[in-house]
Amino acid sequence: MRKHQYIFITLSLFILSCKNQKQYDEKTAEVINTFYGDALGDRESYELLRDLSKNVGSRLSGSEGAKKAVLWSKEVMEGYGFDTVYLQEVMVPHWERGSVEECYYFDGEEKVSLRIMGAGGTVSTPEEGISAEVVEVLSLEELDVLGKEGVEGKIVFYNKAFNQRYINIGASYGETGFQRRLGAIKAAEYGAVASIFRSLSSGNDDFPHTGSMSYKEGVDSIAHGGLGVLSSIKLSEKIKSNPKTKLTVKLSGKWFPDALSHNVIGEIRGSKNPEKIILVGGHLDSWDVSEGAHDDGAGCIHSIGALRLFQRQGIKPQNTLRAVMFMNEENGLRGGTKYADMAIENNENHIVAIESDASAYVPRGFGFSGSDKQLEKIQDWLKYFNKNTISYFSKGGGGADIGPLHRRTGTPMFGLSIDGQKYFEIHHTEKDVFESIHPREMELGTASMASLVYLIDKYGL
Amino acid sequence: MRKHQYIFITLSLFILSCKNQKQYDEKTAEVINTFYGDALGDRESYELLRDLSKNVGSRLSGSEGAKKAVLWSKEVMEGYGFDTVYLQEVMVPHWERGSVEECYYFDGEEKVSLRIMGAGGTVSTPEEGISAEVVEVLSLEELDVLGKEGVEGKIVFYNKAFNQRYINIGASYGETGFQRRLGAIKAAEYGAVASIFRSLSSGNDDFPHTGSMSYKEGVDSIAHGGLGVLSSIKLSEKIKSNPKTKLTVKLSGKWFPDALSHNVIGEIRGSKNPEKIILVGGHLDSWDVSEGAHDDGAGCIHSIGALRLFQRQGIKPQNTLRAVMFMNEENGLRGGTKYADMAIENNENHIVAIESDASAYVPRGFGFSGSDKQLEKIQDWLKYFNKNTISYFSKGGGGADIGPLHRRTGTPMFGLSIDGQKYFEIHHTEKDVFESIHPREMELGTASMASLVYLIDKYGL
Repeated sequence: MRKHQYIFITLSLFILSCKNQKQYDEKTAEVINTFYGDALGDRESYELLRDLSKNVGSRLSGSEGAKKAVLWSKEVMEGYGFDTVYLQEVMVPHWERGSVEECYYFDGEEKVSLRIMGAGGTVSTPEEGISAEVVEVLSLEELDVLGKEGVEGKIVFYNKAFNQRYINIGASYGETGFQRRLGAIKAAEYGAVASIFRSLSSGNDDFPHTGSMSYKEGVDSIAHGGLGVLSSIKLSEKIKSNPKTKLTVKLSGKWFPDALSHNVIGEIRGSKNPEKIILVGGHLDSWDVSEGAHDDGAGCIHSIGALRLFQRQGIKPQNTLRAVMFMNEENGLRGGTKYADMAIENNENHIVAIESDASAYVPRGFGFSGSDKQLEKIQDWLKYFNKNTISYFSKGGGGADIGPLHRRTGTPMFGLSIDGQKYFEIHHTEKDVFESIHPREMELGTASMASLVYLIDKYGL
Repeated sequence: MRKHQYIFITLSLFILSCKNQKQYDEKTAEVINTFYGDALGDRESYELLRDLSKNVGSRLSGSEGAKKAVLWSKEVMEGYGFDTVYLQEVMVPHWERGSVEECYYFDGEEKVSLRIMGAGGTVSTPEEGISAEVVEVLSLEELDVLGKEGVEGKIVFYNKAFNQRYINIGASYGETGFQRRLGAIKAAEYGAVASIFRSLSSGNDDFPHTGSMSYKEGVDSIAHGGLGVLSSIKLSEKIKSNPKTKLTVKLSGKWFPDALSHNVIGEIRGSKNPEKIILVGGHLDSWDVSEGAHDDGAGCIHSIGALRLFQRQGIKPQNTLRAVMFMNEENGLRGGTKYADMAIENNENHIVAIESDASAYVPRGFGFSGSDKQLEKIQDWLKYFNKNTISYFSKGGGGADIGPLHRRTGTPMFGLSIDGQKYFEIHHTEKDVFESIHPREMELGTASMASLVYLIDKYGL
């Protein structure tokens, strides 16, 4: 028995040691370290983002800006000499904000103005605005309780604040999003004449927030806009002290027929398996009120930049690297949907899809939606990352644009996880401009994308 | 044999499963989650830091500001009703910057001013300044090569830039620090009349940086100051185009006799082992040119705040929690040295010392200097942290102030690791003010400190 014991203990130790000492490839480490060094040293992504932000600017689907952005992306990738650069046609919704956005009440003689911005897709109020009493609620369900008699003829004011206690403040965006997305429908169902909502913001300031909203067939389309956080607090106090306060809301927005637009695609062809695709992408459209620097100019350039960093080191990938600038993530997801349609129609073979759409702040990890076995395998890759950039691969995550491809073809997907502490102060507001970008943080995102692509290209999933 | 095999495989699996399934304590998870929630929800640390920054301000050792800061810390901790709050006397160096700091050359008729700031501890130039030709070097060794003939009578200009390629930009601070710390000695050894250096900054701006420097007995004490990065670039170009350019440097600074100051200590007594101490600390002194918001007001308040979060939940620690505001980290380390002296003299029993002195940006992990066995044990605690706050315990690290205690008593030490991408743009410059602090990032630091203290108090090291 002693001998057997010895053998088995030795065997166990050997197995354990094999398990713990997966090979550390110095060449891989060097390539990845160089991705980061080149990105941080050159700051090429940062300068590209400056160009997109300042010379293209806002680019909501269907707008002139979106057209310019399509050309810009194509020219940038052609300029880099990618093997293939092409456009993929997609019809997108086309809504335009009007010039009138105003909200006020009277405090005696004094006109008190509140900062408002129409939700993306809102209809206009009459030119003279809508004036009515306000009913404040914190949930859709409260409207069910109030019923028609409590709501009809009034302006519904959704005033649910972000919960600052969350470490992942993005969870608050999830909790409060109903106000913007569904608020107009529910308010109109009970006869409200307009609806407003507290901006989905973690900030303690007065920059109203925009974003997608919905109407429903058979329910009146009423004007729907977001108030700045401080304006929301002020209005709430006012109507508590005087529930009869009459608020005036003026909003303008107009729908046009669907417009022709494009996903923009650039590729470096695989040397060994050109038919197998590693996709990296972001979305090219942005809200109309800012430069879309974080959302999602950064993600587009993280993706182009990832391919660029391969070029920079002269690395020929085994599989085809494809950077995709998706159109229309913000108010329709038509680009992501069309991309999946075409991938299926053309019988394309995607190894993986990776999206960056979480800002240009400092990266923290990657979320992953794929098999548990794959998730276990990639944990070992963490050894190649500096822990102050990518410190985890976690279960779940990906991106809106690559979601259709993932769901319909089973392609595994990653989403770049970025420190989100400040993001919801600027998200979908006029503050999402290039000046809010830090060059080093931005470049770490590009290098992180390149590194993940390299690992997948080299070791498979 | 088959039976033995079965037994051993079963045994191995059992051992493995014990190893992998360490208990997850729901109560611990809840406490830690509440630390974070309370910190983020209350923003009490952030408001305390506002008070320290705006109402005390800069607080270099020996200054009126430092005296105010000592009283401020004592009052804050007394106000919280900590069990014991007291001062520990320590004699500290006392240097004061004068009002004259100027640097210029003439371009034909035009006076070109460069932004300069004396290193902390510099002597004054004569009132009319020092005017001389400039010799630019990138290392101390270059001076050895140039020798007396190349240096005598000149102003030495150290112009080594930060290496932007590093992910951990702090490594550049390590590489360039010689310019500020040792530059005046080496330059004077070869007969230079003054020395200037490119500020130890990762920024692309013109905010000069200060920090500690040294003189050496038997070597002339020459004036020594830091130029802004843009000024350094400009000067370098100028002397390349005209090596005979005469630069004028005016600096002023004065040394006074050592002054009486204090470490400030506050405790919550342990319910079970009051004689065993868990130390959390930061340093109270700051450079004279800013509010010392990040460096190290944040660390002090992270530490006070950690104890405060225990109070907030009504948690009685088993061991004594001691918050220490060390005096004189920046230019002498007298507080940390004195603290270790007294701990040894009083035969105190420290379980651990934890320092926060890496800014108020977003936390990423903890560095640890202790045994490998302890480091292995604490890895298991990562499961209690949200990976977007504390994602690692790494080998090495601690803090300058707790270093003497660690080295002389073997007390294990931790240092809070914080995302450093932006820190060296503001470190030791006039930009280290409260406005550069983000409330959520700051509060995550406080909660991270409290959480680590809780884990050590509950599970030991």
